[in-house]
Amino acid sequence: MARELDGRTIAMLIANEGVEQVELTEPRKALEEAGATVHLIAPEAGEAQAFDHLDKADRFPVDRAVDDVGADDYDGLVLPGGVANPDNLRMHPEAVAFVAAFVNAGKPIAAICHAPWTLIQAGAVRGRTLTSWPSLQTDLRNAGATWVDERCVVDSTAPTLVTSRGPDDLPAFNAKMVEQMAEGAREAHVRAEPARFEKSAILSQ
Amino acid sequence: MARELDGRTIAMLIANEGVEQVELTEPRKALEEAGATVHLIAPEAGEAQAFDHLDKADRFPVDRAVDDVGADDYDGLVLPGGVANPDNLRMHPEAVAFVAAFVNAGKPIAAICHAPWTLIQAGAVRGRTLTSWPSLQTDLRNAGATWVDERCVVDSTAPTLVTSRGPDDLPAFNAKMVEQMAEGAREAHVRAEPARFEKSAILSQ
Repeated sequence: MARELDGRTIAMLIANEGVEQVELTEPRKALEEAGATVHLIAPEAGEAQAFDHLDKADRFPVDRAVDDVGADDYDGLVLPGGVANPDNLRMHPEAVAFVAAFVNAGKPIAAICHAPWTLIQAGAVRGRTLTSWPSLQTDLRNAGATWVDERCVVDSTAPTLVTSRGPDDLPAFNAKMVEQMAEGAREAHVRAEPARFEKSAILSQ
Repeated sequence: MARELDGRTIAMLIANEGVEQVELTEPRKALEEAGATVHLIAPEAGEAQAFDHLDKADRFPVDRAVDDVGADDYDGLVLPGGVANPDNLRMHPEAVAFVAAFVNAGKPIAAICHAPWTLIQAGAVRGRTLTSWPSLQTDLRNAGATWVDERCVVDSTAPTLVTSRGPDDLPAFNAKMVEQMAEGAREAHVRAEPARFEKSAILSQ
């Protein structure tokens, strides 16, 4: 029986340290069960350290370094959360550019929990309606988004944005993510312009 | 010999989980060596779990719950970092109101690393010049601040804001923090208006 994501390849972008484990494993399982191939992508090749809230959990092999891939290689993008994960990702300009390229190609993006910080950095939230872990709501409003407190929000202005608040919302998130990844790319009606990032001297100390 | 903070009482506000340990212990030591009494304040009484980056470190006794104190009880406020610390604090409206009260009383505030997220929530950064851990720079600019990449920034419009980027900047941070806490309160020229915070249903699940 044909499955809705047969033949599709989905990028899952995470930092090398800090991803919320269940927000990696559950969406990946849902995508694979729908027939997709999923690549775990991070700034550095090697492994990624996942967390269960603030406790270290398992380590996962990274399939591709972000420098070695582009949005052209994928049909959609998934951004898991974990407080330290987007906080790290947004300081990697190549990771931020990779996210912005999905927006500009009109390819669907699903982001959960703290992940919308990376969308802020990619300049991808102005005028969009979305949700997130509640701590981010002010940063999202200040970046021009409309923040709502719902289990799962689908903003279907191309590129489609699917967002949820956290681990408890995963069943709704996974269902809408698979549905929207199946819809596929449409002509982009929103343009992402990554925010200025001043590389700080403290990062190389 | 009289010391510059003899007779002063300083509030150090942290979440019950997530503070960067060295950003708690080193500023506290500097304040105490200058003669100050320091109270560790958190949303809940009991203990606070500190971290060394993403590794759990020591637990510290909380001196006062934030509900039981006010800015009137203190001469200044110190906000340590750690990525999960302000991310949690900003979801406690009573903690955010406590910070805003220092601004409106013109009392000096010193914030390091990720702590300026709490200042964003308190509505305390518009028009101010400051630094932070570099990941926050876009959120701070979007909230109306001017972000600079310096070891320690003193914005002396009352209330004085002393900010630094992270643990490597602690020597400069501690020196300016003690100096400005000694200057004490001045008539506030900046008013803090806490950002709207929509309490999410997911927080009580």
